[in-house]
Amino acid sequence: MTTEDKVLIFDTTLRDGEQSPGVALNVEEKLEIARALERMRVDFIEAGFPASSPGDLECVTEIAKQVRGTAIAGLARAVPADVDACWEAVQHAAQPRIHVFLSSSDIHMMHQLVKDREQVLEMARTMVARAKKYCDDVEFSPMDATRSGYAIPEEFGDFIRKIQENVSNIHKARISVHCHNDRGLSVANSLAAVTAGARLVETCVNGIGERAGNASLEEVVMAIKTRPDFFHLSTNVDTTQIHRTSRLVSQLTGMSVQPNKAIVGANAFRHQSGIHQHGITKMRQTYEIIDPAEIGLPHGTTLVLNKNSGRHGLKARLDDLGYEITSAELDGVFVAFKELADKKGEIDDRDLDALVSGERRAIEDVYKLDLLQVSCGNQAIPTATVRIIDREGRPAETTSTGTGPVDAAYRAINGIIGVPNQLLEYAVNSVTEGIDAQGEVTVRIEAHDRTFVGRAADTDIVVASAKALLNALNRAIAQAPREPQEAWSNP
Amino acid sequence: MTTEDKVLIFDTTLRDGEQSPGVALNVEEKLEIARALERMRVDFIEAGFPASSPGDLECVTEIAKQVRGTAIAGLARAVPADVDACWEAVQHAAQPRIHVFLSSSDIHMMHQLVKDREQVLEMARTMVARAKKYCDDVEFSPMDATRSGYAIPEEFGDFIRKIQENVSNIHKARISVHCHNDRGLSVANSLAAVTAGARLVETCVNGIGERAGNASLEEVVMAIKTRPDFFHLSTNVDTTQIHRTSRLVSQLTGMSVQPNKAIVGANAFRHQSGIHQHGITKMRQTYEIIDPAEIGLPHGTTLVLNKNSGRHGLKARLDDLGYEITSAELDGVFVAFKELADKKGEIDDRDLDALVSGERRAIEDVYKLDLLQVSCGNQAIPTATVRIIDREGRPAETTSTGTGPVDAAYRAINGIIGVPNQLLEYAVNSVTEGIDAQGEVTVRIEAHDRTFVGRAADTDIVVASAKALLNALNRAIAQAPREPQEAWSNP
Repeated sequence: MTTEDKVLIFDTTLRDGEQSPGVALNVEEKLEIARALERMRVDFIEAGFPASSPGDLECVTEIAKQVRGTAIAGLARAVPADVDACWEAVQHAAQPRIHVFLSSSDIHMMHQLVKDREQVLEMARTMVARAKKYCDDVEFSPMDATRSGYAIPEEFGDFIRKIQENVSNIHKARISVHCHNDRGLSVANSLAAVTAGARLVETCVNGIGERAGNASLEEVVMAIKTRPDFFHLSTNVDTTQIHRTSRLVSQLTGMSVQPNKAIVGANAFRHQSGIHQHGITKMRQTYEIIDPAEIGLPHGTTLVLNKNSGRHGLKARLDDLGYEITSAELDGVFVAFKELADKKGEIDDRDLDALVSGERRAIEDVYKLDLLQVSCGNQAIPTATVRIIDREGRPAETTSTGTGPVDAAYRAINGIIGVPNQLLEYAVNSVTEGIDAQGEVTVRIEAHDRTFVGRAADTDIVVASAKALLNALNRAIAQAPREPQEAWSNP
Repeated sequence: MTTEDKVLIFDTTLRDGEQSPGVALNVEEKLEIARALERMRVDFIEAGFPASSPGDLECVTEIAKQVRGTAIAGLARAVPADVDACWEAVQHAAQPRIHVFLSSSDIHMMHQLVKDREQVLEMARTMVARAKKYCDDVEFSPMDATRSGYAIPEEFGDFIRKIQENVSNIHKARISVHCHNDRGLSVANSLAAVTAGARLVETCVNGIGERAGNASLEEVVMAIKTRPDFFHLSTNVDTTQIHRTSRLVSQLTGMSVQPNKAIVGANAFRHQSGIHQHGITKMRQTYEIIDPAEIGLPHGTTLVLNKNSGRHGLKARLDDLGYEITSAELDGVFVAFKELADKKGEIDDRDLDALVSGERRAIEDVYKLDLLQVSCGNQAIPTATVRIIDREGRPAETTSTGTGPVDAAYRAINGIIGVPNQLLEYAVNSVTEGIDAQGEVTVRIEAHDRTFVGRAADTDIVVASAKALLNALNRAIAQAPREPQEAWSNP
């Protein structure tokens, strides 16, 4: 155990965060987030729920094997098969933890478990003992001990205080809290628990998670960091990784961060009204209590590269940005970089993030967009011609009309690929300012009764849209491989 | 004064919320939000800061004249000209309030006001007295009495408690709190203050406002409403208006609401993981403490209209949705409805919202898109032909290439309109699910050193993009009218 004045951060972005509706991360993406969390020096990464699916078991196993600098936890219901599956995955970690949970509110015991209090207590004892045989580090969570997201901070602090006062041997355990955000009070409840003696807080980056999400890592950590006079506590987190990790999680999960989100929102350090601007000019400290550099927000311009920049300059900048990039990835990024620089001249860090993400995605793809040709307008019938090539380089081509250029392109692509799907969500955001900026498209589709997210960036948003749909379909196909389509028999 | 067990809601979406970076509402939009707040039965609407600009003075005056069911407040610095300007605007209200504010922290007095404590106290007394001569209802705010967004709920509750205990005659005043969200604690701080005796909370819809925003109206109100056992208090707010008002504010300000936002986020009432779904099936109450109907979220499908629906059916549905629509507006909406229904068949409430917004915007526009014709693709040079007509119906036409179809269209439009501007932000979101959905485009431009937001929806996102830029440019022109452009002398 660490000293009494440390609050440990148990990040569950990859487990509870990944349960956000519509979020679906593959193993490479989970590894990328796990490495970012390791760089940020969280104390625990809850990597998944191994018993929930073979895919989750694999993800937790890979993270346990590859991410060695942080303790890796897996979630398990209080049943033997779950505890065993959890150990199967986390045993590979440098510091494994089994996290056993069990419903404990009356309403949950009655309606979800259909067991009485004695039976539930017995399940808890037996399964913690089973986990303990495998692993020294066991966490037990009585789920919904207070109603999800229902407590007011004052109450929740008292609740923790009473546990401290009334549970024998409580000094042998570390009290952990996992707060839901249904009332927007998850951070305040976590902090009230810390004040009352909790020394581990479960968080998600950007506060994602089911429904209104969980306590936001960045808010909990920065509250403790900026108020040492109040808390007399600290965390191990390297806060300069917050900004970058927040963007990574937002990109990979497709969960947007609202501009007025505390700490990591686009406006968190941006001012508008005359009065406040005057204050800032006079003395920055008048309004800002956090120096943007503390969360790793770059000061001033991030513009660094243009079309005359070479491969070496690109590599150097990617190193600065913290990308561990393979030589093969660099080849692809450099080609895309040159194409983009030809189109828009100046390339900043946000463009580079989009290029690297695009290259990493492209490597997995079975089907690639070879040609897209679109005509549209307010007095035209939008028409798209699409040619797609598979891994063997075989082309398939078709034409479609639609209600708009994206609809036309999507009908053509669906006609070629032949995976039945429904488009749930479609969004575009410009990567940088300027009319020549890249548009980053995120789509969410439902196929084979599951959700898949696709992303792509391009200066042409119709091209980006087509690539994003292909990316989502490639993922759907990776989950459920199938026979080559008819389109390929008669190209 | 109301009874002791009421917490009054003072909504400042139109004042502090409108100070969010990039937000710029015109008088019609502010009136629309004010009417929504009136329907929601907030106790006070802070309509603006009359001394800050002639436009703000006009907006507050119009709201005071037209919105009669709610008290209307205006903000004023503690200087004579501000108090006078504020009264000039709010005097037309059924229940006017003057809200005088003054920096009161040491750091603000020293750096922003450059005055000592005695001088500041004297300013407060004199200016409250001046306001009181005009108006019975005066609010005084010692700005930054605690550091913006810096307090922890426990501290902030104690702070309010000490005011109650130590200020003579405090029982003659109603204690009001205005909390910033820099730590994500604004709602928790507001609730701690209420527990300690505050009886007025300043809020913004969706928690918008400068930097990380202000306490969110919906979170404060729903916390008080769902925990009568803890607070023993209530508000006057009609919570069934929350969902609709949140969407209106998000649309008009262009400030997105993240999916994991408490109460009004898209996921707030949506579940994913198997375990929780099981819980819901067994008993809805297991996980949801708020019935979605309480915030006015429609249950089940909202699909109601198709291309066979007539004008009467459309009008009836718009009435149900709470739109007070003029006959001229209905004409325009019906034409757009028929066009859309021809393209996509089924029209739901979200489509209708987009159609009504589009029609209301169109009425103000000086320049309209007459023709847009675009070709693009991954092996093409994106090319756009644009024809725009002015109010007199005179056309101007040009062609441009670009890095993508939107860039090409924007270059063509800028070539015709000739208002120098920079594109700060560009975003598209689909209005509904499905590949044939309308895309709603929001752009933010900087022109004449100010920010303007433009919006438009269309099933063709390139058409929507062109209309959104034109909408923003029309607003810029409305602010700074100018001579007809050269394009119109040589069409």
